[in-house]
Amino acid sequence: MQPKALIFDVFGTLTDWRTSITREARAALEPLGHRLDWTGFATDWRSEYDPAMDRIRAGNRGYVPLDDLHAENLVVTARAHGIAAPDPSLARAWERLDTWPDVVPGLNALKYHAIIAPCSNGSIALMTHLARHAGLPWDCILGADIARDYKPKPGVYQAAAAALRLPPEQVMMVAAHNADLLVAHECGLQTAFIPRPTEHGPDQSIDLVPNGPWTAVAPSLTRLATQLFGTGTDD
Amino acid sequence: MQPKALIFDVFGTLTDWRTSITREARAALEPLGHRLDWTGFATDWRSEYDPAMDRIRAGNRGYVPLDDLHAENLVVTARAHGIAAPDPSLARAWERLDTWPDVVPGLNALKYHAIIAPCSNGSIALMTHLARHAGLPWDCILGADIARDYKPKPGVYQAAAAALRLPPEQVMMVAAHNADLLVAHECGLQTAFIPRPTEHGPDQSIDLVPNGPWTAVAPSLTRLATQLFGTGTDD
Repeated sequence: MQPKALIFDVFGTLTDWRTSITREARAALEPLGHRLDWTGFATDWRSEYDPAMDRIRAGNRGYVPLDDLHAENLVVTARAHGIAAPDPSLARAWERLDTWPDVVPGLNALKYHAIIAPCSNGSIALMTHLARHAGLPWDCILGADIARDYKPKPGVYQAAAAALRLPPEQVMMVAAHNADLLVAHECGLQTAFIPRPTEHGPDQSIDLVPNGPWTAVAPSLTRLATQLFGTGTDD
Repeated sequence: MQPKALIFDVFGTLTDWRTSITREARAALEPLGHRLDWTGFATDWRSEYDPAMDRIRAGNRGYVPLDDLHAENLVVTARAHGIAAPDPSLARAWERLDTWPDVVPGLNALKYHAIIAPCSNGSIALMTHLARHAGLPWDCILGADIARDYKPKPGVYQAAAAALRLPPEQVMMVAAHNADLLVAHECGLQTAFIPRPTEHGPDQSIDLVPNGPWTAVAPSLTRLATQLFGTGTDD
């Protein structure tokens, strides 16, 4: 059954956050005289992401948009690298991520056949700025802000389908992360795994292969479009 | 001060709901042998819109998306016109409205300079389908579903600005309805009045002229783009 909507993980699945944040951090901090392991800075900043959301997922903190968590985590990361007071504007580097090369043509091919929307832990504001930066042709923006909770809590996938007024089985979650797809699958959504084997760098050991009963597996969004709908720009 | 985002009323301001619903009702019902005053049917259906939302605005009913109110109001309207059980799919006619001729070029011109989003009483699903039907190039979808309440309650305008993480004075509400702009203005938003003198038909008597201290008044969205940003496709 062809999905009527496809919803997407964004960090990792659509964007190369590691390379982009490495570049953005260096561009902001090196002119101030800082000499850091820039890739280490990017990965350390990202490593604060899950613990910060965990407190909200567990109900120990009310919902706070990811923009604010990124800003809080920036302070922690900068201090660990010897920077006492980083310019808060650097937190908006997450609005300027580069996409993998198949993403824009793939989304345009998929959009011809189905509704497309991010189902990210990024806020509506963050996803809006990123879409304008990268040319992502979303029909609407779903995800954490709609559910006021963070993936992989089931309510985030369920809220996305509900906002589209579609039963879960007509919605496909697309991600490079098996754990993301597992909960979507348990919620009744279709699933598509797109490996991004360098998201975490050259020595990546996780999410290299699909490890669940996913509806589709494809090496790119353009190939996913061809698999699902028989057309699209093949790569 | 140029706005960083423009948010739009949709029914009336961007779309000619009266002509479109007249056409859609006739296309659905005339083949079944019904002979109605089709324009009267469209205006009667629309006249149930505000009373249905009033119950929710007043707190006498929990939030229900407009898709469901349209379906309920269709039953009432059809009965009044002698149709006992209308096909519920006709309620989705509101996803197939035609836009005024300046809307698509105007939105594209405005999007070059600022975030654009609907701030409509239509749901995310309804606005998504309408955008795909009409080619509306939204950056994201705001409005009733985000606030879980209906305009002109202040919370709907405030929730739209908050979702974009912008102070109200950096957001401009664009509408053909003075009452819509009044509350947006009271919430601190900028305002733009775009008259649509035939929204209610040839004898329209309301909203022909601006009647408040609106930030901008323009005869079309393309002209609004030129006024605000000095560029855009003039018409």
